[in-house]
Amino acid sequence: MKFEDFKIMATASATPARVVDNDELSTMMDTSDEWITQRTGIKQRHVAVDETTSSLATSVAQQLLDQSGLTANDIDLIVVATMSPDYLTPSVGAMVQGNIGADNAIAFDVDAACSGFVYGLKVARQMLMAETQKHAIVIGAETLSKLVDWQDRSTAVLFGDGAAGVLVSSQPRTAGTFIAEDLLTLGKLGKHLTAGQVGVRSPFVAQGSTYSPFFKMNGHRVYGFAVKRVPESINHALTKAKLTATDVDCFVLHQANQRIIEKIAETLAVPMTKFPVNIAQYGNTSAASEPILFDELVKKQVIKRGDVVALSGFGGGLTVGTMIIRY
Amino acid sequence: MKFEDFKIMATASATPARVVDNDELSTMMDTSDEWITQRTGIKQRHVAVDETTSSLATSVAQQLLDQSGLTANDIDLIVVATMSPDYLTPSVGAMVQGNIGADNAIAFDVDAACSGFVYGLKVARQMLMAETQKHAIVIGAETLSKLVDWQDRSTAVLFGDGAAGVLVSSQPRTAGTFIAEDLLTLGKLGKHLTAGQVGVRSPFVAQGSTYSPFFKMNGHRVYGFAVKRVPESINHALTKAKLTATDVDCFVLHQANQRIIEKIAETLAVPMTKFPVNIAQYGNTSAASEPILFDELVKKQVIKRGDVVALSGFGGGLTVGTMIIRY
Repeated sequence: MKFEDFKIMATASATPARVVDNDELSTMMDTSDEWITQRTGIKQRHVAVDETTSSLATSVAQQLLDQSGLTANDIDLIVVATMSPDYLTPSVGAMVQGNIGADNAIAFDVDAACSGFVYGLKVARQMLMAETQKHAIVIGAETLSKLVDWQDRSTAVLFGDGAAGVLVSSQPRTAGTFIAEDLLTLGKLGKHLTAGQVGVRSPFVAQGSTYSPFFKMNGHRVYGFAVKRVPESINHALTKAKLTATDVDCFVLHQANQRIIEKIAETLAVPMTKFPVNIAQYGNTSAASEPILFDELVKKQVIKRGDVVALSGFGGGLTVGTMIIRY
Repeated sequence: MKFEDFKIMATASATPARVVDNDELSTMMDTSDEWITQRTGIKQRHVAVDETTSSLATSVAQQLLDQSGLTANDIDLIVVATMSPDYLTPSVGAMVQGNIGADNAIAFDVDAACSGFVYGLKVARQMLMAETQKHAIVIGAETLSKLVDWQDRSTAVLFGDGAAGVLVSSQPRTAGTFIAEDLLTLGKLGKHLTAGQVGVRSPFVAQGSTYSPFFKMNGHRVYGFAVKRVPESINHALTKAKLTATDVDCFVLHQANQRIIEKIAETLAVPMTKFPVNIAQYGNTSAASEPILFDELVKKQVIKRGDVVALSGFGGGLTVGTMIIRY
């Protein structure tokens, strides 16, 4: 039998215990709650202290198992979207697989930065479509605080840590979730948003080069990219789905900046009431932001079974990924 | 139309210009050509000086286009398997996409360490099976020299830098390449092979923890894992393919250690003549090692159209990935 679609069986999230609000940041750098809130919508962020990317992702995976009633042995695939892994090897996916004891699952990480959750969901969906894989866990997990230059007020105020994900199950097409998608990569613009540089170094390389692990962002260019390309991507996916923006019950966008989301809503001529935002609580958690919001909306029953949901991520790469699903 | 299989249209590789042989390493640490050769089969390795993971991968992608006669605009998907990217964002895949101008391609990185090429090929295959994607570039690319502790003679002698890949095209199942696969993740054993630790750090974390970016390996455990699990994986894939080891024309294994490959050949009761080895020239290049060897064998016409080839990677995660194809 060939599986052709997937269903979201469960959603879950996990964030670090430590919360850092804008007032606390103001004691560390020349910024203020008013300045941050006005430009980004962010009021606070969660910051890892004892947590790691893999520990947050493991908590998510365990919750997904508990909610779905499946056992670890039922899981065939674990995809973790991250740009802030614990190690370059093993992957966060492999660590989660070991931690929950999902011995039958293959596991790996996908790096597409803030679009990672949609890219990971696409990879999982297409792997479920083939052969024997039936149950997949897709998680976006980040500890961006380790990639933040806490001396740089232009980026330090933006990012936060967290993880969330979904357990998806293969289904015949008639019963499933997937409607349409549109993914885009703009590698030529990649230089405008970089982090985690691992420069070539060895005794065979002339010393003196310095590499920064920290976020560097041309905010103006990234803003321009997002407000143009994200509505285009959503419209492309809607066209493929033979839907219009008014058919979408809820837009779950990457939480990079409240102003970007407002501009995207305006361009799509959709009221902000259809664009729930939780950036005030979490900041920008990259690949984790859409699944954290999605989980929150499912738990609050803002998103109900049967609703049409547009997930859209955008960021480092530069990348954009939109997936329209029926929850 | 639904595509069901893929064909390898072209193969290519790129390695750094600088070669470091065992004698040169012996001037830097307490080791010798005889010691290294006897235990690993390695005589020299290529080490990046002016090259980066993305520049090597870009060279491979450009060669693949030149050989196949396709233009950059024909490419729909770029998957780079790497554990040593230039940045945590943008991905190497996005950088390659921008560098070659493949504006229609989506691009991302997959991290499954030394099994990454087979994992990446599986992801690409399953994405070609769906919808509109027709041409994919899959590259394994590494600059492991930046993750090597050049003071540690137990690991420094093992690794090398390089990149290689394939251009695959979707095909009806009857004409295609794919026969069977077997992938495995053993996250519980991940601690035995780690590299590139990016530890949690921020002003909110007590200082004092030290994190090492370097390779750390329990060689005994990794050896035991490889000589047991790789033959098992190859046998599982052969069973799915309804083939036996004698039906395979060529085994293209991850080049981690000549002794591991000899032991695997012995376990499978297949003569070493079917297990070509080029580790003497390159060392262990992780995700790049299988495609470098595959490209070399295709160029030398050791692998010819119609041959049954077993690709098998193994390493960090811990992971194993076997794919049996008809070239």
